[in-house]
Amino acid sequence: MSMPAAGDALPPPRIDAARILAPRSVALIGASEDIGKFGGRILHNVLRHGFAGALLPINPNRRTVLGVPAYADIAAAPGPVDLAVIAVPAAQLAATVTACAQAGVGACVVITAQTAEFDAAGERLQREIVDIARRHGMRLVGPNCMGMISPVAGLGLTSSLTLQHVPRLIPGRVGLVSQSGALMATLFMLAHDHGGGFSRMVSVGNQADLELCDFFEALIADDRTAVICLYVEGIRDGRRFVRACARAADGGKPVLAVKAGRSDHGARAAASHTASMAGSYGDFAAACRAAGVVLMDEPEAMALVATAYDRIGDIGAGAIGMIVSSGGGGAVTADRLALADLPLAAYTEPTRAALSRHFLERHINNPVDLGSHKGVLALDVFVETIDAIVRAPEVAVVFYILTAQPLMRETAAALVDAWRTSRKPFVVVLDAGSFGDAVRDLFIDAGMPFLTRIDDGLRALALLFERRRLRAVAQRPAATRPAHASPLAAERLAALPSGRLTEPEAKALLRAYGIATPREVIADSAAAAARAAVAIGFPVVLKGLVRRIVHKSDAGLVRLGLSDAEAVRQAYAGVTAALTLAAEPAPESVSVQETACGSVELIVGARWTEYGPQVMAGFGGTLVELLRDVGFASAPVSRAAARELLAGLRLAPLFDGVRGRDRADIEAAADVIERVSWLAVDLGRQLVELDINPLIVGPRDAVAADARATLG
Amino acid sequence: MSMPAAGDALPPPRIDAARILAPRSVALIGASEDIGKFGGRILHNVLRHGFAGALLPINPNRRTVLGVPAYADIAAAPGPVDLAVIAVPAAQLAATVTACAQAGVGACVVITAQTAEFDAAGERLQREIVDIARRHGMRLVGPNCMGMISPVAGLGLTSSLTLQHVPRLIPGRVGLVSQSGALMATLFMLAHDHGGGFSRMVSVGNQADLELCDFFEALIADDRTAVICLYVEGIRDGRRFVRACARAADGGKPVLAVKAGRSDHGARAAASHTASMAGSYGDFAAACRAAGVVLMDEPEAMALVATAYDRIGDIGAGAIGMIVSSGGGGAVTADRLALADLPLAAYTEPTRAALSRHFLERHINNPVDLGSHKGVLALDVFVETIDAIVRAPEVAVVFYILTAQPLMRETAAALVDAWRTSRKPFVVVLDAGSFGDAVRDLFIDAGMPFLTRIDDGLRALALLFERRRLRAVAQRPAATRPAHASPLAAERLAALPSGRLTEPEAKALLRAYGIATPREVIADSAAAAARAAVAIGFPVVLKGLVRRIVHKSDAGLVRLGLSDAEAVRQAYAGVTAALTLAAEPAPESVSVQETACGSVELIVGARWTEYGPQVMAGFGGTLVELLRDVGFASAPVSRAAARELLAGLRLAPLFDGVRGRDRADIEAAADVIERVSWLAVDLGRQLVELDINPLIVGPRDAVAADARATLG
Repeated sequence: MSMPAAGDALPPPRIDAARILAPRSVALIGASEDIGKFGGRILHNVLRHGFAGALLPINPNRRTVLGVPAYADIAAAPGPVDLAVIAVPAAQLAATVTACAQAGVGACVVITAQTAEFDAAGERLQREIVDIARRHGMRLVGPNCMGMISPVAGLGLTSSLTLQHVPRLIPGRVGLVSQSGALMATLFMLAHDHGGGFSRMVSVGNQADLELCDFFEALIADDRTAVICLYVEGIRDGRRFVRACARAADGGKPVLAVKAGRSDHGARAAASHTASMAGSYGDFAAACRAAGVVLMDEPEAMALVATAYDRIGDIGAGAIGMIVSSGGGGAVTADRLALADLPLAAYTEPTRAALSRHFLERHINNPVDLGSHKGVLALDVFVETIDAIVRAPEVAVVFYILTAQPLMRETAAALVDAWRTSRKPFVVVLDAGSFGDAVRDLFIDAGMPFLTRIDDGLRALALLFERRRLRAVAQRPAATRPAHASPLAAERLAALPSGRLTEPEAKALLRAYGIATPREVIADSAAAAARAAVAIGFPVVLKGLVRRIVHKSDAGLVRLGLSDAEAVRQAYAGVTAALTLAAEPAPESVSVQETACGSVELIVGARWTEYGPQVMAGFGGTLVELLRDVGFASAPVSRAAARELLAGLRLAPLFDGVRGRDRADIEAAADVIERVSWLAVDLGRQLVELDINPLIVGPRDAVAADARATLG
Repeated sequence: MSMPAAGDALPPPRIDAARILAPRSVALIGASEDIGKFGGRILHNVLRHGFAGALLPINPNRRTVLGVPAYADIAAAPGPVDLAVIAVPAAQLAATVTACAQAGVGACVVITAQTAEFDAAGERLQREIVDIARRHGMRLVGPNCMGMISPVAGLGLTSSLTLQHVPRLIPGRVGLVSQSGALMATLFMLAHDHGGGFSRMVSVGNQADLELCDFFEALIADDRTAVICLYVEGIRDGRRFVRACARAADGGKPVLAVKAGRSDHGARAAASHTASMAGSYGDFAAACRAAGVVLMDEPEAMALVATAYDRIGDIGAGAIGMIVSSGGGGAVTADRLALADLPLAAYTEPTRAALSRHFLERHINNPVDLGSHKGVLALDVFVETIDAIVRAPEVAVVFYILTAQPLMRETAAALVDAWRTSRKPFVVVLDAGSFGDAVRDLFIDAGMPFLTRIDDGLRALALLFERRRLRAVAQRPAATRPAHASPLAAERLAALPSGRLTEPEAKALLRAYGIATPREVIADSAAAAARAAVAIGFPVVLKGLVRRIVHKSDAGLVRLGLSDAEAVRQAYAGVTAALTLAAEPAPESVSVQETACGSVELIVGARWTEYGPQVMAGFGGTLVELLRDVGFASAPVSRAAARELLAGLRLAPLFDGVRGRDRADIEAAADVIERVSWLAVDLGRQLVELDINPLIVGPRDAVAADARATLG
């Protein structure tokens, strides 16, 4: 095979991510019988778990390795070779990749580390192998990855020793893309211990060629995958990520994610781990919320909860019906559910009647404490209590905490039966330590989902209720452009200055989208200001307009509540003096404005982020940073979504009027957010940031009293 | 032994809680060989774990039970019998307790349930056995308890099957008092799986006689117990609890607690579980904070973390040094530490130099990711990295997350060595699922503390830093009464009206404690009001004073910002009209007040709670419920503690002045809190509640602009 000359068009890729996840043939460079070596561990792992495709050990010194016919080099291996796994030292990496490229290999899975995440030489080496691969249409996974584990294909293509520990790969419908290889193995192991299985798991390392989104998209299209988990350090292409999330949502595939880099230490750790720039965690979180991705706090919990959820299924209407065998633990857990806004069902009369067979009226609580039964303890107490809760239409999900108790195995068997026959979602926590080992085995054999810590049980319930909320949100009509918010004509967009806009320029932009601003006159003398004030009506506001000053009040450029002509004239003198101090006096730089009246001051903003345009709204005016009562959403937002954003703020009751205050029109405020979101969509990357602060909301309107914007 | 007649003075108790926890002799009523029966399980458990005292099975039909000489009834057993364990049906309970009382038994441990927590008959039965016991000086544990587990005495005096599962009771220095018996067994089991041991665990059930505080106090005095865990459903005597906490703090014994009843569902569950009234969770939490008790969210986590802490020990100066074998997991965990305000150390030059042997400059992060080492992986990478972090003086505690990795056992052994030789506190999380079983055994054999979930690792770190903070707080001088805040003379206290005070009455109380209030004149005519306003200085405030109206503004009884005599006269007319509407016009019911000026409005309050007097302070004025930016403390508070309470509020930066606002004097505000706390101490149970709202804080003072109080 000849090397394409530089300058030639690059050939098309030989293989796609879907094929990489389900390869027909795998060559192992440096295959060895020594389990102490990378090439040995991978071969042992692949052989142990029954891969049905062609396995091609490459070893110059052996005719067979572990009984499998071996080839002296990759060129000698019978093609087509979908994947070649490379764990050679860095010094041999370029030559090995070249040999693979020339031999027609579809993709290399590069385990070799000390590349871009390591030093400058490693960065050069990584660029070199990408060049080699691209020139041949060969793809790369990694470098600095740990390969993949594909239980549905019986393929354990990783060096992790965990695959020697487990008797089998449990197939499930959860797919995982991880930027951390070691983490992939940890998650595999923890889920396995709970009977939790995966479809395909892949670690993408430094993402030199193929990146997280390639495999995310492949899993969205994969018919063996129903739930997708992502461990993210940094997203390469935020827009692509958001589009993929939308496709997953359309396909009905829940996506769970954990992202590193929420703190400085975490971001530095991520950068040094896989050379990923973490980006803004807040932007990622807002994008996830908009895209219906459930963001979790811990990878381990994500794997445990996702593999349980795969078998639990989605919940319908109703709340949680909780059964415990430890009354004390049940009481504390009920408290934790309340703190997490996870609803416990109020039992209806038929449910109470069914429970009254074994419980006195005063003991029919939610949770039901099995220890408080009346009469003598026997298996029917457990079985019939489970049955009563399972049958209750007010119960969307049964939450059972199984602690050390008499008849424990029998109770566990009854739980499995109830789960199988009722098809009701069950979240089971086996909270018995090693005393529960026999029950654990029973659950695993039965395929019954369970968790072992209440922390994880709460996370599973949170996921179920969040998924229900997201499904309801997905039913809603998409955001549509409101009236009088036409996209700016292209020439008008082009005519906007770049850099910081003045307040009148920013307000003009808002008015073009149908957002109200106070009446305003530019005055070039004290007398003109006084005349303007009379025309507008007292009290008025005077502002000095300076392009480069963001906090006008701090610079003495704002005078509020001017109630007569004399006050206006004095204010004019003061503001022009401040303008002179600010070294930007301009002929048309004093604005006389109507005083906006209302009972609530909001901040509404918009920004371009790596995931697309985003809006923000919150309480606080100048105290916004202190109050931290702000919500974010991807633009565009529908009116309903904007209203929800406002209703979710801590101070939202202010809209209804509290303690003698006037009510404020939440609809008018939501309308402004909606319009700003379309403005952000239309400005696109041109919008660095825009803030309305304050947006003054009265009983019937919302007025942008001040605004600033920076365009790129 | 004769029955004392009713009306006789009760005899002194035969035995105390300390002796009950360390009995010399135990009689088992209904001892049986059948492990399916309560009496059988308890006997099996006691025999299995090598109790050194006298074991006395009571069985009318057997000469020996499981080879132990048996007695036909309790009267036949050789005394003195410290404990008799009773698990008979409720119908036989009274007779059995009577027999024990007559036989001179020190205390009965009553496992029998269906007593007060069950129904009215059960309540009567419980009262009956208490009467029997009290008449004889016999004590009761329970009823509705699960007995106790005392590893330091080899005594497994409970029916829990978990004691048949474990080969031995691991002795430790953690004592537990639990209002839930099943929970005691769960906690025992989980800690055991992690090599965690206890000194003594006792379940107190319905607390008919001996209650949680009896055993809490016994553990404080117990020289085998160094750390105390409490599972609380309801506290019988809050003042006694607070005193015990203080004694534990004086004795240097950390106390950890979990309490049920934070939510309605949890409170109902607790009530039906052990007939406990949950009380206010907030009051309990504030009392714990004041008493240095660490309140945790989950009993399971409390047991795991406490038994690890028992071996980890307290931390000194410095922050966290984190080592991980999974870079991805490390990054996310670093984020979680930051979110929880748990500080990661910034490495000093000597530490960086030591790490540079195995790591490039860019990979010397905190966490150190062992996977990013340079050169070839060998054990010395692990050993020398651990050594570098252990030696770092900036590291108070090593946080090691051990995931599946090469050389895992060797690394674990190195960890144990480093922990043993360095005496540095280590928090180790073995995050490898069943792949880590061999390491788990190694840790347990070595007595090395470890946890298995990062959630618990974070909780352990939080405990270590909280304990360090509490030790620092304990060093501070106690709260002392400030000048001009003399206790109210007894006659003056007696002269205070009960029920709701008027604003002037409440303010007089505040002034008696040196708290400033605005100048104020009572006016009986519009003209008098205007004259008063001139004397006070404009602008003034006019208020109609009505004893039974709490929210004066809502009733139109407050007029603010009156800037001339005419405005005052008009306001007087308006307020008197509103007073007429409020049906309480009184001759001296209009107050003319100075307008207090300041930049911050606080609310400061005080209340009598079951744990004693409590103060509250927060931002918000009328928005206090919405802002939820409030802190609580037990009274009295020192100036320093009051300042800390304020500094911990979300809006605390307002004291420094933000965005052009004036600064506000945090010292003056802290002074008011301190004075209110002494007022609360002096009023004691007489104080139902008192609020200053708003307390107006200016650059140099704090003025109680309005106040209300209710006395009992």
